[in-house]
Amino acid sequence: MSLNIVVMAAGKGTRMKSSLPKVLHKLAGRSLLQHVLGNTAALDADARIVITGHGAEQVETAVAGPGIRFVRQEPQLGTGHAIQQTIPALTAGGSTLILSGDTPLITTATTRALVDACDGRQLVLLTIEYADPSGYGRILRDGDSVRAIVEHKDASDEQRCIRECYTGIMAAPTEALKRWVGQLSNDNAQGEYYLTDIVAMAVAEGVPVVAVRTADETEVLGVNSPSQLAQLERRHQLAQAELLMTAGVRLADPARFDLRGALTCGRDVEIDVNCVFEGDVTLGDGVRVGAHCVIRNATIGANARIHEFTHIDGEAAGASVGEGALVGPFARLRPGAQLGAEVHIGNFVEVKNSTLAKGAKANHLAYLGDATVGERVNYGAGSITANYDGANKHRTTIGADVHVGSNCVLVAPITIGDGATVGGGSTITKNVEPGQLAVARGRQIVISGWSRPTKKK
Amino acid sequence: MSLNIVVMAAGKGTRMKSSLPKVLHKLAGRSLLQHVLGNTAALDADARIVITGHGAEQVETAVAGPGIRFVRQEPQLGTGHAIQQTIPALTAGGSTLILSGDTPLITTATTRALVDACDGRQLVLLTIEYADPSGYGRILRDGDSVRAIVEHKDASDEQRCIRECYTGIMAAPTEALKRWVGQLSNDNAQGEYYLTDIVAMAVAEGVPVVAVRTADETEVLGVNSPSQLAQLERRHQLAQAELLMTAGVRLADPARFDLRGALTCGRDVEIDVNCVFEGDVTLGDGVRVGAHCVIRNATIGANARIHEFTHIDGEAAGASVGEGALVGPFARLRPGAQLGAEVHIGNFVEVKNSTLAKGAKANHLAYLGDATVGERVNYGAGSITANYDGANKHRTTIGADVHVGSNCVLVAPITIGDGATVGGGSTITKNVEPGQLAVARGRQIVISGWSRPTKKK
Amino acid sequence: MSLNIVVMAAGKGTRMKSSLPKVLHKLAGRSLLQHVLGNTAALDADARIVITGHGAEQVETAVAGPGIRFVRQEPQLGTGHAIQQTIPALTAGGSTLILSGDTPLITTATTRALVDACDGRQLVLLTIEYADPSGYGRILRDGDSVRAIVEHKDASDEQRCIRECYTGIMAAPTEALKRWVGQLSNDNAQGEYYLTDIVAMAVAEGVPVVAVRTADETEVLGVNSPSQLAQLERRHQLAQAELLMTAGVRLADPARFDLRGALTCGRDVEIDVNCVFEGDVTLGDGVRVGAHCVIRNATIGANARIHEFTHIDGEAAGASVGEGALVGPFARLRPGAQLGAEVHIGNFVEVKNSTLAKGAKANHLAYLGDATVGERVNYGAGSITANYDGANKHRTTIGADVHVGSNCVLVAPITIGDGATVGGGSTITKNVEPGQLAVARGRQIVISGWSRPTKKK
Repeated sequence: MSLNIVVMAAGKGTRMKSSLPKVLHKLAGRSLLQHVLGNTAALDADARIVITGHGAEQVETAVAGPGIRFVRQEPQLGTGHAIQQTIPALTAGGSTLILSGDTPLITTATTRALVDACDGRQLVLLTIEYADPSGYGRILRDGDSVRAIVEHKDASDEQRCIRECYTGIMAAPTEALKRWVGQLSNDNAQGEYYLTDIVAMAVAEGVPVVAVRTADETEVLGVNSPSQLAQLERRHQLAQAELLMTAGVRLADPARFDLRGALTCGRDVEIDVNCVFEGDVTLGDGVRVGAHCVIRNATIGANARIHEFTHIDGEAAGASVGEGALVGPFARLRPGAQLGAEVHIGNFVEVKNSTLAKGAKANHLAYLGDATVGERVNYGAGSITANYDGANKHRTTIGADVHVGSNCVLVAPITIGDGATVGGGSTITKNVEPGQLAVARGRQIVISGWSRPTKKK
Repeated sequence: MSLNIVVMAAGKGTRMKSSLPKVLHKLAGRSLLQHVLGNTAALDADARIVITGHGAEQVETAVAGPGIRFVRQEPQLGTGHAIQQTIPALTAGGSTLILSGDTPLITTATTRALVDACDGRQLVLLTIEYADPSGYGRILRDGDSVRAIVEHKDASDEQRCIRECYTGIMAAPTEALKRWVGQLSNDNAQGEYYLTDIVAMAVAEGVPVVAVRTADETEVLGVNSPSQLAQLERRHQLAQAELLMTAGVRLADPARFDLRGALTCGRDVEIDVNCVFEGDVTLGDGVRVGAHCVIRNATIGANARIHEFTHIDGEAAGASVGEGALVGPFARLRPGAQLGAEVHIGNFVEVKNSTLAKGAKANHLAYLGDATVGERVNYGAGSITANYDGANKHRTTIGADVHVGSNCVLVAPITIGDGATVGGGSTITKNVEPGQLAVARGRQIVISGWSRPTKKK
Repeated sequence: MSLNIVVMAAGKGTRMKSSLPKVLHKLAGRSLLQHVLGNTAALDADARIVITGHGAEQVETAVAGPGIRFVRQEPQLGTGHAIQQTIPALTAGGSTLILSGDTPLITTATTRALVDACDGRQLVLLTIEYADPSGYGRILRDGDSVRAIVEHKDASDEQRCIRECYTGIMAAPTEALKRWVGQLSNDNAQGEYYLTDIVAMAVAEGVPVVAVRTADETEVLGVNSPSQLAQLERRHQLAQAELLMTAGVRLADPARFDLRGALTCGRDVEIDVNCVFEGDVTLGDGVRVGAHCVIRNATIGANARIHEFTHIDGEAAGASVGEGALVGPFARLRPGAQLGAEVHIGNFVEVKNSTLAKGAKANHLAYLGDATVGERVNYGAGSITANYDGANKHRTTIGADVHVGSNCVLVAPITIGDGATVGGGSTITKNVEPGQLAVARGRQIVISGWSRPTKKK
């Protein structure tokens, strides 16, 4: 049986007070609309239709992809009007699932249940019981059947005691839906076409109207303001944290954990407070991440330790840390940083687009950019690869067992041979052969009886 | 009609276990007493009287200002005794508003409502309904009139069911107040003069006693211990966060946001987790502040990005970041740092009292102090302005399009002309003319067959 | 009367999904089992017996100590079977307290109350009233006596209304305990020996069975999963925070405070958000610790200020900060860092195994390792002690009032005499006498008309 998925994404989101259309606001690093599309990707739909309006081009650019079609709703005259625009785009027969682009955490399981219940012949409403249902449309039932949705403001006192509410999400038989939305009227105070008016039409036609009830409030929460966005973000983060903990990850504080992407963890992973993970991050067995770390698009090998205040951002190129490596505190790994096993990167050290072989160390205040560093190299405190001549980037190659002293400058392109030594304070501009000692510094002179400058008035 | 505002601030705050008088403890960066005075500043008062006692000099120094008068209460013999001390200082006629210096978040609206209700002729008590009123003085009413306040310990079982409680805040007709506090007795277990005894006097005299009821528990919460201070801080921070979000600011986690001062935000501002703002901070349209930043007394231009772990402290001089600039991670801007548009300040870079023109960059491990940096300058990794000769600070001037290599020292006072280049590893002590290349480094020599030191036993 | 303390620690903790035995997982920096042993250390026990099984060797190695005996339970056939293994190890007569190694926060007071109530003659169960007792074994009473424990699944509807539950902790007369556990049967669905079956035996024998009821849920919470571990960690951290605040410590946010060890604070200590303390840390009077600091095994002198993003880790050697010193932001103190009074350590500065005398300063991007630094020394930005020659560590000695310029390298072993000056950019390899100026840099040469490299295509 054919299936259409329709996502309403035309709203402005006035209360967001943003130039960004509401559905493009981000939850856990992805737009609200991407969540909705992602969470229904597993459903075998014949058509996926996104209804756009406010900021239509921005929205369409942001979520364009295979199988996604866009229908414009301009102006926005209500939910029923939105669905009217989709009629030409709907695959005939079967069911149509109607979702809201600002209700991001709707689950695959629930949408599947709606579609299954619809089965091309029943109108299915997603409902939920609220402890405090004030403001929501109540579900009036005759046994298992739904008789009507009554808006809070129109409800009698008795009806207001009903705690089962409509969530804004439904599935309808496609052909009936087309017929019903064609008959909607905007003869009401707001002058809008309300999709919920089709419930009465279905009842009148004798089409069964049923409810699928969810117990998970989070999946039906919509976002209308930055405050609601923040609340949903927290719920989602706690849920993600709980999933990771169930899988064995030890989080020092699930309320101070942020994941905006996908985090894959081995066994016995420990993550201390206030860490933020973005993009695709993999932590191997036994990895320990200290407090206050930010890690994006990176792979951390087994038993590596990422000390406090470490910033790793692999961006598109990725960054990797080898098994048993020690990184931080106050280290920064940038795109293309590839640390081998047992590499040590210490405080105030930046590594970019550089490969460090097993056991290499750069422990203090150093910069390694566009460098290839051999095994067991000791790269001294304060040393810098001068990889940029103001116009082009050049590569520095440091052989195995090289010892680079403190505060050196290696002016790329340059090669330091295996086992060579660079004396502290040297600016090296010419290649150094294997085993050589290279020094480039001024001779030490002393002046006795020199007078210090004195404080000027 | 004349108005006196009296703030009781004589208490020691024993449970604070501090050498600081209780009312000087800070909530969101300002003392409790400053909050009370600030929140009532909009009331058109004829006299503002602060009753001091414990740490009187410290308190008086801390909040001295135009229109603030101090009255000493020594020793402290109760709230009634405190008000007795103010009698000579009260402007005659009209109303007197009595506040507590340890109840910082009382609002302008509520205090205005108290004063309006008092109108120089009624005794007005600020009350609140507690879900659990245990320990509080209960309000006994005859319809709209208050008959008495009964202390919890003196209350009957029936009276203990009353949930409306006295908050310690009132407004009284000034002349009646003077008369009543003159009649107070300390014939009680504590030997103290209780201000609440005036309720009975008012009732006896037939002066109307009424209640203004607040629904906002936060505004009547007093601070008696570090724990209560922390709780109130959190409530206040969440309230501030909510206000910002309502205005459109996107906070990743309102529970991990601290504002101790005034934060002005443009449109589409995003603030990640665990940021702390102090003093006066302005964030322009589209500014994004990464996780774990601390920003004090600074102005950030539109669309600038402040990356994670950035510390900006303008102190008195201020600090500014230009439009579209990129700062951090691990950057530190100090007083007088003025970054132009599109300036880049990268990791482990410190900028103090320096101006960087449009497009200048200092991306890695560098120090810029007392410097004027031209447009498009590239200031190399590890380079330092030696601005301090041990006695005086000197200025470094770097012209437009200058390229300073890595690990250079620019010994101030010094000028590097437009378009000049400083070779990596150079210590520059003499001015460099525009377009020149300056190099100051030792010649590279190599020694073959050199033996490394070996590990001593 | 003799006392045995038995701790059951043989379980695997399958839901922890860890290669570490459950009781070795850490709460606030110490293993669950260490907490149990520590919290009962004040009880005057004749024998302390830990029952091990899964990961027995690991557990035994981890908590071995004076007075601790281990009994192996292999295989694990239930709680009754566990106690059976201890019979030969129990000191005769008196009482036996039976605790669980995964219930870490049991208090000294409660365990003492159990032992006192047992008095070698009563079976005493630790119980608690749960708001929602679902899943727990209910306590059936005849007045003050306990008649039975009924498992949730075996309880009648009426019994399920009972909210008093068994906690898994008991004290029993030792001789009776031996007799009872010898009579246990495993004739049940799981084929296990249940210790709770001894309640029926005691009742049958007429031995009094009584309950000690605790009101503190935290002390009876067991850990079975990372999620439960995280929840208990948060409860414990909040409790620790509350204790510190009661003692006068000002915490900006008790929910963002972590203490994994012992924190000793003087008067008027302020700790900002997100700080983590580990090991033994002492903060003197008036110390202020900024946001986002990590401090381990260190002593901070009175009125010192630890600015934001400071990382202090004294490890075994310890680290100390003198009175009135200023440290950070972005400073790192490592083992053996000993800062005198009024020392300043600024941003991106690392200090290891070094002593700085009163008033010495290293404010910017510097490394001090294995150094002795005199009073009032000014250690320039970017300067490095080259303490490691690739094989051995050497010491740098800097006399009082020395001024070291920017980006210097001091190649150890080396001594810079009192009052000497080292010019910026110098690599110093030979001792400098007191008062001398030492410079070691290349002469500045300039090349006019030099052409910059151009961007390659």
